[in-house]
Amino acid sequence: MTAWKGRFRKRLHPAALTFSSSLPVDKRLYKEDIEGSLAHVAMLAKQKIIAAREAKVIRAALRAIRREIETGNMAFGASPSRNSRFVGEDVHMAIENRLIKKIGSLGGKLHTARSRNDQVVLDERLYLRTAIAGIRKLLRRLQKAFVTKAEEYDHVLMPGYTHLQRAQPVLLAHHLLAYVSMFDRDYDRFTDALKRINKSPLGAAALAGTSFPIDRDFASSKLGFNGIVGNSIDAVSDRDVQIEFLAACAITMMHLSRFAEELVLWSSQEWNFVEIGEELTTGSSIMPQKKNPDIAELVRGKTGRVYGDLMALLTVMKGLPLAYNRDMQEDKGLLFDAADTTADCLQMCSLMLESLSFNAERFARELRGDFLLATELADYLVRKGLPFREAHALVGGIVHDCMKRKRSLADLSLEELQKHSKRFGKDTRGLLDVRGSLLRKKSSGSTSPKEVRKAIQAWRSRLGISSRRKGIRIASHKTKS
Amino acid sequence: MTAWKGRFRKRLHPAALTFSSSLPVDKRLYKEDIEGSLAHVAMLAKQKIIAAREAKVIRAALRAIRREIETGNMAFGASPSRNSRFVGEDVHMAIENRLIKKIGSLGGKLHTARSRNDQVVLDERLYLRTAIAGIRKLLRRLQKAFVTKAEEYDHVLMPGYTHLQRAQPVLLAHHLLAYVSMFDRDYDRFTDALKRINKSPLGAAALAGTSFPIDRDFASSKLGFNGIVGNSIDAVSDRDVQIEFLAACAITMMHLSRFAEELVLWSSQEWNFVEIGEELTTGSSIMPQKKNPDIAELVRGKTGRVYGDLMALLTVMKGLPLAYNRDMQEDKGLLFDAADTTADCLQMCSLMLESLSFNAERFARELRGDFLLATELADYLVRKGLPFREAHALVGGIVHDCMKRKRSLADLSLEELQKHSKRFGKDTRGLLDVRGSLLRKKSSGSTSPKEVRKAIQAWRSRLGISSRRKGIRIASHKTKS
Amino acid sequence: MTAWKGRFRKRLHPAALTFSSSLPVDKRLYKEDIEGSLAHVAMLAKQKIIAAREAKVIRAALRAIRREIETGNMAFGASPSRNSRFVGEDVHMAIENRLIKKIGSLGGKLHTARSRNDQVVLDERLYLRTAIAGIRKLLRRLQKAFVTKAEEYDHVLMPGYTHLQRAQPVLLAHHLLAYVSMFDRDYDRFTDALKRINKSPLGAAALAGTSFPIDRDFASSKLGFNGIVGNSIDAVSDRDVQIEFLAACAITMMHLSRFAEELVLWSSQEWNFVEIGEELTTGSSIMPQKKNPDIAELVRGKTGRVYGDLMALLTVMKGLPLAYNRDMQEDKGLLFDAADTTADCLQMCSLMLESLSFNAERFARELRGDFLLATELADYLVRKGLPFREAHALVGGIVHDCMKRKRSLADLSLEELQKHSKRFGKDTRGLLDVRGSLLRKKSSGSTSPKEVRKAIQAWRSRLGISSRRKGIRIASHKTKS
Amino acid sequence: MTAWKGRFRKRLHPAALTFSSSLPVDKRLYKEDIEGSLAHVAMLAKQKIIAAREAKVIRAALRAIRREIETGNMAFGASPSRNSRFVGEDVHMAIENRLIKKIGSLGGKLHTARSRNDQVVLDERLYLRTAIAGIRKLLRRLQKAFVTKAEEYDHVLMPGYTHLQRAQPVLLAHHLLAYVSMFDRDYDRFTDALKRINKSPLGAAALAGTSFPIDRDFASSKLGFNGIVGNSIDAVSDRDVQIEFLAACAITMMHLSRFAEELVLWSSQEWNFVEIGEELTTGSSIMPQKKNPDIAELVRGKTGRVYGDLMALLTVMKGLPLAYNRDMQEDKGLLFDAADTTADCLQMCSLMLESLSFNAERFARELRGDFLLATELADYLVRKGLPFREAHALVGGIVHDCMKRKRSLADLSLEELQKHSKRFGKDTRGLLDVRGSLLRKKSSGSTSPKEVRKAIQAWRSRLGISSRRKGIRIASHKTKS
Repeated sequence: MTAWKGRFRKRLHPAALTFSSSLPVDKRLYKEDIEGSLAHVAMLAKQKIIAAREAKVIRAALRAIRREIETGNMAFGASPSRNSRFVGEDVHMAIENRLIKKIGSLGGKLHTARSRNDQVVLDERLYLRTAIAGIRKLLRRLQKAFVTKAEEYDHVLMPGYTHLQRAQPVLLAHHLLAYVSMFDRDYDRFTDALKRINKSPLGAAALAGTSFPIDRDFASSKLGFNGIVGNSIDAVSDRDVQIEFLAACAITMMHLSRFAEELVLWSSQEWNFVEIGEELTTGSSIMPQKKNPDIAELVRGKTGRVYGDLMALLTVMKGLPLAYNRDMQEDKGLLFDAADTTADCLQMCSLMLESLSFNAERFARELRGDFLLATELADYLVRKGLPFREAHALVGGIVHDCMKRKRSLADLSLEELQKHSKRFGKDTRGLLDVRGSLLRKKSSGSTSPKEVRKAIQAWRSRLGISSRRKGIRIASHKTKS
Repeated sequence: MTAWKGRFRKRLHPAALTFSSSLPVDKRLYKEDIEGSLAHVAMLAKQKIIAAREAKVIRAALRAIRREIETGNMAFGASPSRNSRFVGEDVHMAIENRLIKKIGSLGGKLHTARSRNDQVVLDERLYLRTAIAGIRKLLRRLQKAFVTKAEEYDHVLMPGYTHLQRAQPVLLAHHLLAYVSMFDRDYDRFTDALKRINKSPLGAAALAGTSFPIDRDFASSKLGFNGIVGNSIDAVSDRDVQIEFLAACAITMMHLSRFAEELVLWSSQEWNFVEIGEELTTGSSIMPQKKNPDIAELVRGKTGRVYGDLMALLTVMKGLPLAYNRDMQEDKGLLFDAADTTADCLQMCSLMLESLSFNAERFARELRGDFLLATELADYLVRKGLPFREAHALVGGIVHDCMKRKRSLADLSLEELQKHSKRFGKDTRGLLDVRGSLLRKKSSGSTSPKEVRKAIQAWRSRLGISSRRKGIRIASHKTKS
Repeated sequence: MTAWKGRFRKRLHPAALTFSSSLPVDKRLYKEDIEGSLAHVAMLAKQKIIAAREAKVIRAALRAIRREIETGNMAFGASPSRNSRFVGEDVHMAIENRLIKKIGSLGGKLHTARSRNDQVVLDERLYLRTAIAGIRKLLRRLQKAFVTKAEEYDHVLMPGYTHLQRAQPVLLAHHLLAYVSMFDRDYDRFTDALKRINKSPLGAAALAGTSFPIDRDFASSKLGFNGIVGNSIDAVSDRDVQIEFLAACAITMMHLSRFAEELVLWSSQEWNFVEIGEELTTGSSIMPQKKNPDIAELVRGKTGRVYGDLMALLTVMKGLPLAYNRDMQEDKGLLFDAADTTADCLQMCSLMLESLSFNAERFARELRGDFLLATELADYLVRKGLPFREAHALVGGIVHDCMKRKRSLADLSLEELQKHSKRFGKDTRGLLDVRGSLLRKKSSGSTSPKEVRKAIQAWRSRLGISSRRKGIRIASHKTKS
Repeated sequence: MTAWKGRFRKRLHPAALTFSSSLPVDKRLYKEDIEGSLAHVAMLAKQKIIAAREAKVIRAALRAIRREIETGNMAFGASPSRNSRFVGEDVHMAIENRLIKKIGSLGGKLHTARSRNDQVVLDERLYLRTAIAGIRKLLRRLQKAFVTKAEEYDHVLMPGYTHLQRAQPVLLAHHLLAYVSMFDRDYDRFTDALKRINKSPLGAAALAGTSFPIDRDFASSKLGFNGIVGNSIDAVSDRDVQIEFLAACAITMMHLSRFAEELVLWSSQEWNFVEIGEELTTGSSIMPQKKNPDIAELVRGKTGRVYGDLMALLTVMKGLPLAYNRDMQEDKGLLFDAADTTADCLQMCSLMLESLSFNAERFARELRGDFLLATELADYLVRKGLPFREAHALVGGIVHDCMKRKRSLADLSLEELQKHSKRFGKDTRGLLDVRGSLLRKKSSGSTSPKEVRKAIQAWRSRLGISSRRKGIRIASHKTKS
């Protein structure tokens, strides 16, 4: 019994069989394939296209096959069988053949009113639904880890960077919360993609629908879809939702690569700002003293892999006429790779994040001398009525003088400042305090301790993190002072 | 007056100025830049950070500059000026400098409580909002053109293809409607992207927020955003929504490339199924008889361009530490290119589609002889109780015999059929009628004339196409017969 | 005994071990790894860094391990071991550990004056050398198949296409030979890449070289390299030759995708120009009459995969500081995938090509009516002194008239032609013969039978195809007439 | 007079004209187009296809047009003309039309025995030849800058990094020379690409060759090509050499992005290792103290752009049937963008490199305490007979103890060392000297001063850098000690 032996008189060339078989890749879909078949058979019975007792036998056998697979008692064969043209061509035929072997020709009724064209895309949609559920959960876990770490280190100052140059002092917590927002958009992107993925193509058959009186909505709701892909040609021809999934993975990986980069930078001896847990770093085969951020590097590197998956499927689909073309078979390996890689990298980032110890004292002293508060002086002058551009240029001149004379802004006396502008008053000196500068920040979403505390609370409540602490130390401390 | 002349004592190297200037690219954003500045100044005045009369003067001058630009009376200079370190570095500085030239040092107050970091991403978001509005409108126009063309040719049969082999007869209208569904998901993707794009970053300043008592929400709603990007570091650091936009463009282009491919195929002499309007085809410099589907080919080719834009921005953002890095400047050219290309290609596809004349008779005869109805015979046997797989193999054998003897299925007598299976009865012959086979299709979303008519009606009402016709000819005609 | 257990007190997190282990991927490199180690040990002994008898023991054990692996008697473990921090981390450690298990602490001398950084890139270069040898052989086989097929069908005419519109008649053989040239450049590209790949990095150690008195050139020539990668930091830091290999694969796949596309087009019912051997096509699970060019479609689809591999490694390497970073581990899977895919697709294309039967009569009649000879008329007028542009416009007008009146050029009488231009003489009619038009082609590399015959001969001799036939039938036949 | 007006009765839709015109992009090719036409006309005259005096007139007019363009006296029109179907469609037609306007219908003879299909690819090959010459020159300049800078700082030590962790001390010069090797391979890749690019397609005509008795070799050698692209279909169908050029650009950009990344890292306050010349850095609009490595960041960012160009052309060409398809028009913008970007970035990197001041003292002290010499201890034990793996583990334990007790290796007394291994002797202490460790390096290509000096000399001679200095200070100094 073969899928298309009827017309053909020659066997498929063995090398072509190996080349074209998707079984080594798509056997992962056995669960989705059987789930889909169970629903399909239930529908066929309900519509009296097959008899109820036939359905019962087929469904029991399908469940038995699932158990066989899960207990390792059904050999898929890593390489396809040579005995026939098709056994082992893909997971669909492998399961159907096992079915026919188990229950005889009745098994041949399973494929009534169905084609592998709608079957494979059904399996993929079921798979992606599960994969997205997993990724969303991991995104939430990672967000929580960021919020928790932000809260743990809510008193730590660091330089905010632009161009990797120190720009302005910020709270480490504020920096960490930026990632929470980034991953929140990722979460939403997967949610949006799911809306389009979670539709049933079953019943589109090869491309034109079927003359059997099937009930597409019944099968769809039995499988938990939120509707059907209406047009039957569209249902089997497109892979846009798959690409959308890959794009969401690629963007998530982009975000992860940025965090990974920061871990690599921050754990360099030069930065010395963070230590990744020993259980998540590795050593060197020749340099025993090293503690390498390999996991972070791998996350960063695997970004390329997922970008490649996206580019690959975009290329596959470029310029393909409707409806199904065999080129599309390539999508499955790409989906699996991107879903696995994204999930693994999310998990690794959560583990790393949870393991981080920040060197809280690292920047405390340096920040003061770093001219990071020049903006404060400029803003002061603006408040005194000087146009921003002039204030900016004037303070730039002060900074330049200091640098030339190897002094910090804090070293300048009021008289020295007043040489540059008479607008500087006695209240100037207070400006050059790093923590004070944070407290002066006023705008929503800024790095002011008050805003950061508000943000932590908002995320805690949104992400459902149970309450453990009472607020941000720096803030409570500072609001006293 | 320069953006950062204060500290620097050397001029920027002229080659570096040319290299780093984004003005030739970002001058397109003048409108968004001024729109953003107008809202910013209004907010500054409302918050009394600048005086109301100052705001009035600045706003009037900004509007005057907009007019100057639009009437070509403000020279941006394609190449940046050599007279200063920055004039002409980007559109923001170009406009601010013009402002200061017009109204003196008061113009220097415009940039109070703002940085180019939040300004540029504000401009981009305003730009993308407009670009998406345009693309969505063009997607709707294209969908309408498909629906209208489907209705115009609702009686035309064609082979549905899989593997570019004729598979089963379908209605041309059904095939065209597949695209309507595809572009509908594209529309929704842009809508979803817009949710994330339509947030105001203004007020994030360089990265940390500001100590001026600004009102971010006021500026945001004045600009029509649906909220602010909360975390100030996130607001200036990320470009994920830009990538999401590019991904949506890439998927749309993928769809367009498939339609373009079909136009190229169908207008080949071999297919001879469609004629593209002469005003949208070109000739050859050496072969006067040719009528080339250049526009379709260009649409297909430009797909590569948009894929490239997506890959470029993904690469740019890979592994960048927070917050702003100058690498990100590269995003604007990519966004403009993808938005323009996608919009242009959508427009071209609408024009081509509207100009199409289908050769309605092309497949009418051939379809019958093409074994496209073999499935009908197999399904017949299934209805008579034969398991699908056996029916399939049996009909495969019949097809094979026919091919060997150069006969069509329709040529076979009942006796000949019955030699293969006694289940064939007198009602068999009626199966081998192409239009009949369509009428027998039952499933939702199938190519049956009834389903196709329903789909057309549904799209007409959803897309707001005014009623002009009464139904599908084939259907009304055929249901009579 | 572990690679870096000395300093560490905690075990690597099991999930991190699985995540970071490259063993499931790089175990393929066991042969190269052992080959490299054998040469390294020989060099250590020659330089008296280890004793000759130690080297003998180690080398014997390494060979024994190779046999164990090849006979399946050494378990790599698909998933890395949990018993230690590193066993199973990669193929290098797996083999070294096995060695130490076999011969005790002497095995620990293998890694003297070496690091995994130079070891891994050594293995990759050995691997790529072999992979390129295989691909070049397959390219040659494919070229031969094209030449042989060209010769077999040397009398067959087809329309040459531009814009997929019939442009001018050409010999099928000429069309096929275009691919021979394309694949020749691919062959040369791999040859050029090999020059840069075939250099030994061994001895660069971790990044700085070593204080042991090693002889890099000895090991290099023992391994058959054509020199060493000089700078030790460069040797372990770069992956440019790997990317170059991927680019060469991507370009080859681009060429294969074009041939695959033509196979798909030509075997469509519309073209009906070629039949792919049954052993290389597949059927449909629901449409027994179909004969699908799946193998060609898969080749076309797998192009995306290799493009993705290229893009992935480019992304991995973007912006990485020197020297080794763990991100680079990702390269191996990409190299294997691209090499395997390219090799498989080359083989499949050879098989398909060898199996092709062309429908020699397909275009014979049609070509005459297709206005494909309009250029002949234009060139005639040019020879009579009319400027090309005017001749072109004038013939364009004639074609247009014919089309309007549904006539072919060959239907026109001399009088009718002369109405358009008095320059048309009695010798005009002979122009409108398809085979004659080929014979009139004069330029080198043109589709004239003489040129095509010359090209076939040149390729036969260059590719070393033994002589079997005497020339091109069309040519010998036609030169008589 | 239009390119294909003969047959057509309708004008091209204005939007389609704008959409399809390549003039705004390809007008850059005017020089190559005219150069090609001059050679073509010379050949036509030599072959007596046109008269010698006709050729003379045409050639003079072509040169006049070139002058007109270069002096800005020929309006290409940024947007194509609406007055005809084709004027302004591309640079070829624009120039031919100008020619006909100047010298009347004689100008119409220019295009005899030629097609835009071979013309455009001729122009591209001429363009790429020039572009490659420029890029190779810039690569050489950059290599020289690296060698010169290496020599200037030949005494400076720095940590060599793996995983961005300090691994072993190296000479800065050694690190810089790694780039010289990298860019040398880039140079060779462009040279290899040029072999394939530098072939003339002229005479392939539309796709089939021509019946005019042209001499392809004459035109080819007149244009300085090293041969012709033989097969006429291949000549107009392929864009593989263009892709190869883009791949070479992409790899070069990858290398540049790594150098740019290091500049960004090294000029961070944390690294504080290098200062980029003020004329090549920028400030901030709100933080007057900043000195941002914008140019390096832009180089890094523009890498994405060139990757995108490569991916775009690969996508364009995927699955295109032979011969010319209009999709290919997209290649020109990509080639220009990649060539310009690569050249600009090479120039910027040379400028930055030349401007660098290294902070020579930065790492001098730190390196000693950083356990970077642990390898020395391990190698010492190996020389005393301990297997590498055991030595490695043992030293790892020592490092761990030191870290726990916050001591450096150099702090350990011999007795303390001997507690770990009796093999440590009196000669141990000398090992822990950073410069000494460099001097002990022995292998070719290592960071030993002797090897580095040798490498500098070799590069100086290979790159033709005139001699200015006498050797490496560290080396001469140290070999004395």
